[in-house]
Amino acid sequence: MKELHDAIKTFGRGLGKDVVKVDMFLNHRIDTQLLSQMGKAFAEEFRDERPTLIMTVEASGIAIAVAAAMEMGHLPVVFAKKSENKVQTGDVASAPVYSFTHKKEYNIRVEKRYVPRGSRVLIIDDFLADGKAVEGMMQLCEQLDSQVVGIGIAVEKGFQPGGQQLRARGIHLKSLAIVTGIEDGKILLQDD
Amino acid sequence: MKELHDAIKTFGRGLGKDVVKVDMFLNHRIDTQLLSQMGKAFAEEFRDERPTLIMTVEASGIAIAVAAAMEMGHLPVVFAKKSENKVQTGDVASAPVYSFTHKKEYNIRVEKRYVPRGSRVLIIDDFLADGKAVEGMMQLCEQLDSQVVGIGIAVEKGFQPGGQQLRARGIHLKSLAIVTGIEDGKILLQDD
Repeated sequence: MKELHDAIKTFGRGLGKDVVKVDMFLNHRIDTQLLSQMGKAFAEEFRDERPTLIMTVEASGIAIAVAAAMEMGHLPVVFAKKSENKVQTGDVASAPVYSFTHKKEYNIRVEKRYVPRGSRVLIIDDFLADGKAVEGMMQLCEQLDSQVVGIGIAVEKGFQPGGQQLRARGIHLKSLAIVTGIEDGKILLQDD
Repeated sequence: MKELHDAIKTFGRGLGKDVVKVDMFLNHRIDTQLLSQMGKAFAEEFRDERPTLIMTVEASGIAIAVAAAMEMGHLPVVFAKKSENKVQTGDVASAPVYSFTHKKEYNIRVEKRYVPRGSRVLIIDDFLADGKAVEGMMQLCEQLDSQVVGIGIAVEKGFQPGGQQLRARGIHLKSLAIVTGIEDGKILLQDD
């Protein structure tokens, strides 16, 4: 997506070999004009999948999920909450997610009452790297007897395996920008 | 605001004497139709204050701040991040916030580069109770050499002192719903 590519080229910062910082427009300061354009792009991509609900995980996925939901006839958004502790009750779906960034496992959870059985879920998140957060949300959807009809990502790290694995499984995945590498602080992007 | 009142009456749950749960439409599942209406209400209320930036705090303030920003000509949103540790560098504004819910102090921080000096800041948050989070954001704005031109809140707990204290200081505060109390699980609301 051109506007996101431009923003990454202008404001993105690459740290070391694998850290992509987009704090200027997505993860700390939010450019809401760009956000609406991203929402429109997801709406076009996934309209034919007829999602009934958008799922994301707090905190930085919320803004993008909301923008997409607004462009798709104001779908409901459910954001999974992070917690240190395992939650085990019949009312809550939960799944472990290993964070390579923080080198620890945490849990994500959704109260079952907020996702009707048989929902057609579009998963939206800001980043896709190793795919652990998306994998966790897919596990939640299984526990919620709901179907993942698509996965929309703002920035995919193409040099990490998450995206490739999801595509190999035939899942409808759309990343608005794919980072192919970082060289001397410069973020390299795959052509649209 | 009628639509928010209706949602609170229909889906809100009161726990004990002071816990107001709005997980069904705001804090876990988000009703994005209602969210847009709330954004419009804030835009009408604060347009004449000519804000140049909206500030909130992660995680549940983000959706409302984004909705308001979209209705106000796509203003930028900056969300303060929570951290356990004090951050003390010249590049970061930070302030302590005491949480009565969790009975501990945490810190909120904003990277200074994301809020230009002289910004006219509209603070948006989901809840106002004792006012500690808003107070923390006002401290950030002072460190950022920026002016708070208004405070927009979704749900104010009118039986706690935050709102009264802010109004007494002459601050332009608008709460879309004011809870006056909880009786037997029922949430009581101040008339619009």
